[in-house]
Amino acid sequence: MTTADTISVTAPADFHVHLRQGALSELVTSHVRLGGFTLAYVMPNLQPPIKNTEEALLYKAQLQAIDPTVEYLMTLYLSPDLTPDEIRKAKHAGVVGKIGRLSVGPVQADNIASTGVKSYPRGVTTNSDGGIESYETYYPIFRAMEEEDMVLNLHGEVPSAPSDPSSNICVLNAEPSFLPHLIKLHAAFPKLRIVLEHATTRAAVECVKSLGDTVACTITAHHLALTVDDWAGQSWNFCKPVAKFPDDRQALRDVIKEGHPRFFLGSDSAPHPPTKKSTSTPSQPCAAGVYTSPILLPLVAHLLESFGALDKLENFTSGFGRAFYQRPSNSARQTKLRRISGRVVEAKWTKGTEEVVPFWAGKEIGWEIVEDE
Amino acid sequence: MTTADTISVTAPADFHVHLRQGALSELVTSHVRLGGFTLAYVMPNLQPPIKNTEEALLYKAQLQAIDPTVEYLMTLYLSPDLTPDEIRKAKHAGVVGKIGRLSVGPVQADNIASTGVKSYPRGVTTNSDGGIESYETYYPIFRAMEEEDMVLNLHGEVPSAPSDPSSNICVLNAEPSFLPHLIKLHAAFPKLRIVLEHATTRAAVECVKSLGDTVACTITAHHLALTVDDWAGQSWNFCKPVAKFPDDRQALRDVIKEGHPRFFLGSDSAPHPPTKKSTSTPSQPCAAGVYTSPILLPLVAHLLESFGALDKLENFTSGFGRAFYQRPSNSARQTKLRRISGRVVEAKWTKGTEEVVPFWAGKEIGWEIVEDE
Repeated sequence: MTTADTISVTAPADFHVHLRQGALSELVTSHVRLGGFTLAYVMPNLQPPIKNTEEALLYKAQLQAIDPTVEYLMTLYLSPDLTPDEIRKAKHAGVVGKIGRLSVGPVQADNIASTGVKSYPRGVTTNSDGGIESYETYYPIFRAMEEEDMVLNLHGEVPSAPSDPSSNICVLNAEPSFLPHLIKLHAAFPKLRIVLEHATTRAAVECVKSLGDTVACTITAHHLALTVDDWAGQSWNFCKPVAKFPDDRQALRDVIKEGHPRFFLGSDSAPHPPTKKSTSTPSQPCAAGVYTSPILLPLVAHLLESFGALDKLENFTSGFGRAFYQRPSNSARQTKLRRISGRVVEAKWTKGTEEVVPFWAGKEIGWEIVEDE
Repeated sequence: MTTADTISVTAPADFHVHLRQGALSELVTSHVRLGGFTLAYVMPNLQPPIKNTEEALLYKAQLQAIDPTVEYLMTLYLSPDLTPDEIRKAKHAGVVGKIGRLSVGPVQADNIASTGVKSYPRGVTTNSDGGIESYETYYPIFRAMEEEDMVLNLHGEVPSAPSDPSSNICVLNAEPSFLPHLIKLHAAFPKLRIVLEHATTRAAVECVKSLGDTVACTITAHHLALTVDDWAGQSWNFCKPVAKFPDDRQALRDVIKEGHPRFFLGSDSAPHPPTKKSTSTPSQPCAAGVYTSPILLPLVAHLLESFGALDKLENFTSGFGRAFYQRPSNSARQTKLRRISGRVVEAKWTKGTEEVVPFWAGKEIGWEIVEDE
């Protein structure tokens, strides 16, 4: 429902979010709901990564203990430790009783321990040192995933190679250079559902559009706002993949405005302590990541309105992603936004000694959540 | 003279350096000599900019008062205030007596108040708000400069236009997008000596090579070291123009290794207070600039050696630039470097409350200055 000054979205779903572990997780997991979302597709790049059924169930239980009102979908970290048997186990694991010392919380209808498997190319982002170097060795895994109808989530970048000028790979062309891998994987496993995560380039958008209905693409809020000039000299806006050219941002905006059903929100909201985002000395590069969770739905509404796509808010933040992931919305859950002027994004959120600074801190944002049922 | 462990360079000349004003100038001007250089071609982007003969002479006198052992060549800030008469005045100003309250110091043989004129596109770097938007209106100035044999220094970038995706201009393509202006200026004023400053792209290198002998190009030390991945998330390595792709860096290295006489050092060493280089909050973007002056000659030797061009050190840091600028070296002045292991670049330099942090702070550098005659 859209009127001039209010919008309701049915059960907003964030199909790519980092909820961390330990004390930081205690702080940021509650921000999923604060940002208006009732489903979180949770990334597995912890230390150590979430690599099997037990670890996924334990992590899910930890998140549910922090905020049981959010539906958490898990994805396993692709590594040589993963086997086809583990894929089948993750898909069919009945969640009963206790995992380790933690109560597992409400059993979900489908008893799935993990919805997908996430692939990180080695070394390109936070905790990706154990990432993959080539895909062929994982074909048995992908075959099992295809049979079990699991989703493959791809961090679609190849590693930079600054010392190899002939390859010329750096953070700017790391995503376009990855696309041949996506095309090849889709050709080899046409029924495998694949999500190219956090697309940032026109090349990626056009590539996904050109592929079959089993290939989808998440888009973050911050990549709808930023171009390279915004992170040049501003480490708080630095993330992987980096925001690209103005024309690339336009392609992201256009595909949302077009209402293409295989492009939907995955915030890639990635909290880091402020000491890891600031660059107080030349020898301290900052962590990659932009944090949007606590303001996510108002931010997306603000951005979509800025380029004339506010009418696509519900499909982009709920309908399209839920359809691709086969997680139909519970229409009883509505998040209602109201237009507001003079609302400024909070400078930070804290809990104990943990602190996170959101994207657009101090900037005005034109919407606020008034009801979250 | 090159041996395994020592190198001597005759009168090293830095043909692009920022020496600032006030207390910061007191600190950094002495670093020209500390870095092994005896000639500094001084940028005019002060607040307010150096726009005429009197201001250039006064600024030069201030620099001479700080360190009289360096030869300072001045360049005026191109703006609507500049006239053909002012160009002729700057070229022929006899430097006598006092300018304002400052003694002018030793009169230089040619009595030139300014050697060149520097053009900044509007808004692209530090103190460029008064920069130019189109060149045609300045043709009478360029004609006078051509007649007087002055040098035109170009900051070769067009302004970013993030809100215009059809132009698609951002910091990454700002330099290639400028090159048509360089080509047009050279065609209109073929005898005018032009320097494309701080080139960062293969496109710029190839463009300058393709033009006549009156067009030269400066290259910084830091652009021989950095690619985009080095300033992504690291504001201390952020400068304008930004460092580009690995292949672009290779083009800069190759043209030096080739010994092309129209490519020479201009450090673009640009000091900023640490508070302007760090990014402690999301709302504080950092100043553009990398500071290399106090380590310049050892750093350039280290870098040239890393890509097999140490034998080009003298021509790159002295001979080629002096030939283009018609400032023959005084062969009595030699800077001698010695190979060293375990030398680490200083964390900072201070004077009073002023502080500057150099490029490569804390990193090992393989050469040190042992004599500077």
